Amino acid sequence: MGRPLRHPGARSPDLRMIMSATRSGSEPSAALLTAASLASQAAGQGTAMHAFCTQLYPMLRSITGQGVRDTLAAIGHHIPLTVTEVPTGTKIFDWEVPQEWVVRAAWIKGPDGRKVVDIADHNLHLVNYSAPFRGTLTLDELRPHLFSLPDRPDWIPYRTQYFKRDWGFCLTDRQLQALEPGSYEVCVDTDLVQGSMTFGECILPGDSTEEVLVSTHVCHPSLANDNLSGIATATWLAKTLAALPRRRYTYRFIFIPATIGAICWLSQRQDVTQRVAHGVVISGVGDGGQYHYKRSRRGNADIDRIMALMLAESGEAHEQIPFFPYGYDERQFCSPGFNLPMGCFSRSTYGSYPQYHTSADNLDFIRPEHLERSLQLLLTAFGMVERNGTYLNLSPFGEPQLGRRGLYSLIGGHNEGQKLQLALLWVLNQSDGTNSLLDITEKADLPFGLIHQAAEALLNCGLLGEGRTPV
Amino acid sequence: MGRPLRHPGARSPDLRMIMSATRSGSEPSAALLTAASLASQAAGQGTAMHAFCTQLYPMLRSITGQGVRDTLAAIGHHIPLTVTEVPTGTKIFDWEVPQEWVVRAAWIKGPDGRKVVDIADHNLHLVNYSAPFRGTLTLDELRPHLFSLPDRPDWIPYRTQYFKRDWGFCLTDRQLQALEPGSYEVCVDTDLVQGSMTFGECILPGDSTEEVLVSTHVCHPSLANDNLSGIATATWLAKTLAALPRRRYTYRFIFIPATIGAICWLSQRQDVTQRVAHGVVISGVGDGGQYHYKRSRRGNADIDRIMALMLAESGEAHEQIPFFPYGYDERQFCSPGFNLPMGCFSRSTYGSYPQYHTSADNLDFIRPEHLERSLQLLLTAFGMVERNGTYLNLSPFGEPQLGRRGLYSLIGGHNEGQKLQLALLWVLNQSDGTNSLLDITEKADLPFGLIHQAAEALLNCGLLGEGRTPV
Amino acid sequence: MGRPLRHPGARSPDLRMIMSATRSGSEPSAALLTAASLASQAAGQGTAMHAFCTQLYPMLRSITGQGVRDTLAAIGHHIPLTVTEVPTGTKIFDWEVPQEWVVRAAWIKGPDGRKVVDIADHNLHLVNYSAPFRGTLTLDELRPHLFSLPDRPDWIPYRTQYFKRDWGFCLTDRQLQALEPGSYEVCVDTDLVQGSMTFGECILPGDSTEEVLVSTHVCHPSLANDNLSGIATATWLAKTLAALPRRRYTYRFIFIPATIGAICWLSQRQDVTQRVAHGVVISGVGDGGQYHYKRSRRGNADIDRIMALMLAESGEAHEQIPFFPYGYDERQFCSPGFNLPMGCFSRSTYGSYPQYHTSADNLDFIRPEHLERSLQLLLTAFGMVERNGTYLNLSPFGEPQLGRRGLYSLIGGHNEGQKLQLALLWVLNQSDGTNSLLDITEKADLPFGLIHQAAEALLNCGLLGEGRTPV
Repeated sequence: MGRPLRHPGARSPDLRMIMSATRSGSEPSAALLTAASLASQAAGQGTAMHAFCTQLYPMLRSITGQGVRDTLAAIGHHIPLTVTEVPTGTKIFDWEVPQEWVVRAAWIKGPDGRKVVDIADHNLHLVNYSAPFRGTLTLDELRPHLFSLPDRPDWIPYRTQYFKRDWGFCLTDRQLQALEPGSYEVCVDTDLVQGSMTFGECILPGDSTEEVLVSTHVCHPSLANDNLSGIATATWLAKTLAALPRRRYTYRFIFIPATIGAICWLSQRQDVTQRVAHGVVISGVGDGGQYHYKRSRRGNADIDRIMALMLAESGEAHEQIPFFPYGYDERQFCSPGFNLPMGCFSRSTYGSYPQYHTSADNLDFIRPEHLERSLQLLLTAFGMVERNGTYLNLSPFGEPQLGRRGLYSLIGGHNEGQKLQLALLWVLNQSDGTNSLLDITEKADLPFGLIHQAAEALLNCGLLGEGRTPV
Repeated sequence: MGRPLRHPGARSPDLRMIMSATRSGSEPSAALLTAASLASQAAGQGTAMHAFCTQLYPMLRSITGQGVRDTLAAIGHHIPLTVTEVPTGTKIFDWEVPQEWVVRAAWIKGPDGRKVVDIADHNLHLVNYSAPFRGTLTLDELRPHLFSLPDRPDWIPYRTQYFKRDWGFCLTDRQLQALEPGSYEVCVDTDLVQGSMTFGECILPGDSTEEVLVSTHVCHPSLANDNLSGIATATWLAKTLAALPRRRYTYRFIFIPATIGAICWLSQRQDVTQRVAHGVVISGVGDGGQYHYKRSRRGNADIDRIMALMLAESGEAHEQIPFFPYGYDERQFCSPGFNLPMGCFSRSTYGSYPQYHTSADNLDFIRPEHLERSLQLLLTAFGMVERNGTYLNLSPFGEPQLGRRGLYSLIGGHNEGQKLQLALLWVLNQSDGTNSLLDITEKADLPFGLIHQAAEALLNCGLLGEGRTPV
Repeated sequence: MGRPLRHPGARSPDLRMIMSATRSGSEPSAALLTAASLASQAAGQGTAMHAFCTQLYPMLRSITGQGVRDTLAAIGHHIPLTVTEVPTGTKIFDWEVPQEWVVRAAWIKGPDGRKVVDIADHNLHLVNYSAPFRGTLTLDELRPHLFSLPDRPDWIPYRTQYFKRDWGFCLTDRQLQALEPGSYEVCVDTDLVQGSMTFGECILPGDSTEEVLVSTHVCHPSLANDNLSGIATATWLAKTLAALPRRRYTYRFIFIPATIGAICWLSQRQDVTQRVAHGVVISGVGDGGQYHYKRSRRGNADIDRIMALMLAESGEAHEQIPFFPYGYDERQFCSPGFNLPMGCFSRSTYGSYPQYHTSADNLDFIRPEHLERSLQLLLTAFGMVERNGTYLNLSPFGEPQLGRRGLYSLIGGHNEGQKLQLALLWVLNQSDGTNSLLDITEKADLPFGLIHQAAEALLNCGLLGEGRTPV
């Protein structure tokens, strides 16, 4: 600014010292959650996250069944997880929990008696939720049950038929073209039984009963980006947040089958939905595409603004997408009866890349560094969620004397100090009880971390009070 | 989208069958008013509309008098019309109904005794509302009473002097230049008498007493675009809507003298103004210029948004104009005491083309195809007015099961089916009782017709209820 | 427009006559305050304003002391001024009034016994608020007390150290470089005593007790643009407004030390702050830079919109700046406890030019024509403040008959008359009690003066009434 500072003070205080001093009372957690300290915990986690995906890849997941249970068990080795089984036939809003799918074997033997397709080779070979069948068919009779991708002759497509009692096989187009006329023996050794639908929850209690809800689906078999990347990232997020000595919000991570699983969870946890203050669906965060955030139905919820701010501060190329009522499970969480403040965080979006829902969405398609970066960005966003608040300037008539409280940087102070000084003035000027730190950040066009740092310093000095409890 | 649809259903329903099924209760009319069915009735009407303009062209209209009565009588052959006479001297707000103008003859004879100007040749030759006069004048004495357009030497201008007791003649500049010095005999055989002001109304009752008001002026003599195009289009609109077995709104078409006629109608129908839900002034819709819609004083009334949407969907080049308090009779309907939700629909606008208010605004200046297209667009807009509504998703917790209700298109369904599926999801997601179909259309960026089709299907299935009665 | 006017009227009235006719009752002042009549009073004042700056330039101003008192005494020769002394130690919100600074002499003698720096040569040589000191130092001991601008070797910087008990000298870098090793005698013959802080107020009573607050700081010694330009302009503004026979608002001009002086005034005049309807901080208005207006914290106060409109109508290149909580005293007036509707008006902004806070901000840096133009623009803005109001169309049903009231210009009227006619229609259409003349001006995109002229004409005709008292 060039104008001489009027309050040089006897000695410049070390602001980090002021900030780390224990403040009596409410928010010791916040001090721990500096942007750096929380997000930095992502460092080096990519390799372990990718290894976890590798462990989960072979499991045969569907919207029900053993694959989901095995997946949840693996997650439970990393974070505290509660598993809920909802019996077949249970009424869940407009739906019922379907029969559980049991798979023992599934193959087709060719005219020469050799297996031409076998689920033992790849989970995607069997159309998901295929009903049991045993028989011998001509190639022509068999064809309507076979699905391939002619323009991607080496990839196996992923298909489901949850609500149609039928069976089918997916194979590469090269496999399909090689089939010769003749007699084919088909074995679909599956069952649809009275069982249950399974979901997992990891709850990390916080100072408040208000919750941050993180959802990812667990129903895709042997697909890496569209499923495993979300599971691994959500698991590591939970693991990192669980290690904090204290959290302001209660965090709930849910691992659910898509669509009907989301509807099932919503019907079983209607009381919880009342307490969701912020939320995010995580999906497709391991590939190399640019980041996308799809806003909640509300359009301008705090989580929407925080994600926008975090992505802008991250320096990553990214795009924000307005809400639309299809895509991932945000379509359920944002149905009009709930209208939760939840968007969807992803790299490449739903259905936008050729590998999507094919065997090419494999463990090579996702990279440790992409998983790690996604974890880091989400931790940064949750750091903002934790640290945002609305305060009250307790000395609102003119500017208070920052100098005698040691808050003013020295004459000719370094650039960072000048920015902090602006942040102090912004926080004081705007803290009339209506503006959150997020609001102030948007107006001041300064980093959120700096605004929060200023607010902490002012809280420690008694110049700022709790205007409105943040949750 | 690429994601496998989860509810293929046993068989794909024919959505048109579902939609045409009789729904018990409220809105049978809506089914008839598909975009196609209503707007398509414009097809082939252009010729008859132009012929009607040709019939009306020779009548000597003014703000009062026989020309207006003859015009209303001709309109009355096409639609049910009530004619109201308001006597001279009647107080109409800040004004009084003026004396009625009677014209028997008007001409000027030159020094050689031959008529140089004669109203029998063209109605525009006499300045409208000229007071009676008889006398012989020199050319110099006559000149202040003669009006021409020097830069358009073959066109006769249109002039009025309603509030000044004087007389005058309009002629081509070629006629004016040809006049030689000498003695001119002037005959203005007119009268200004205790009579009345006349207007016509066509009322088409609907389910609701709320009204859609359509206004056009009937006071211009022998001007085609600026008057006859509006009269013909309003008449054909009324004729088409009258043929419907049922209407949701009551429609009122008013055929009134401009300005003072609008004030007169407003003063005589103050009760009606309370019930106007939507309205439009129609003027200048027969020429080849691009379309314009001038928004109402409210700026964002439903009719403003519907006109904007209709024009955007039409593919026509067009422009929207913010309200300003001059122009056509919207300036009266939008005076602060009424502030009706009425804009003005036109092709070339008020005063913007050289032919405006001259003899060149003749029957060649308007074309059957332009009249027909204007009719078609207005029918499309009224189709939207009729079909707009605000509904309530009766299964608002998560998505309802569309499959078992036969609403989901087949796997790999055609493009149109996919769009309808998106429309179904948009209507379900947004129908929380606050968003009208118009709101949803704007958010979804899908055609209004598709959104309405989805709403109808959902109403028929019982998934949607009447959130708020639309009128 | 092209359309024939319907109300030519027998004779066109002279609108200026109508407007100058005495209207019974409320606002005789407004008639005097036509844009031209008020702003025109700036003409020729630049020379006297610059001469006043020249008179004030040598005074040694600081945040307290005799320099401020001498400055206020000089202002008091031009306008009625009340001077308030607030004793040292008085609690003013979070601060206390500091000790008063007394300066008798300050110099440094070189090894040869000759004075190398002397406050008698330039007020900026002594660091403002230097504590008393007497002693002999080596050049090395002296250096930490000496300040220069290496990149501007002929300019003396301006430095203060209000809150640090120390002393220092400012000198040109050429002077500094010329100093030879040896023994230096230093004399800082100052005192910091129990005294007072001084500010001046000029109050011009108006019809309303609501106030327009104009603030400028008086604490900078021998700096021309950053201080004297504001003092002179505020003084001449007050002088011009004082000469009016009547004002609608009460005007309060305050001449205060910056920052702590603003806080002191606010603490002493808390009751007044309740009555501030509009305000502006004036600073840096004598240089040749383009105009800037920094908006109030409210962002869209009437004064913000008026300044924007005035600058747009002025034809001057200019920039509007959103509020930020540092800069001049708007940071105090806009602190959250007050949040006054006050912005800051300047040419070159705070700290943005090299001469800022150096001896180069001298009497040559400011020009009579720049001072005069600033006065003129502020008078124009205050003319808008005085003339703005919200009225009620008393004939709101359709358009009233302007013709019989002589308000319609003649057929083919001149261009200015047509614009006035549009203004009349805009004022009538929008005056429903919610739109001020400022609102109408913004919507109509016509000059404010024309809208006000139309409103006056309509008030005189009885077509408009006092909707809401403007203050």
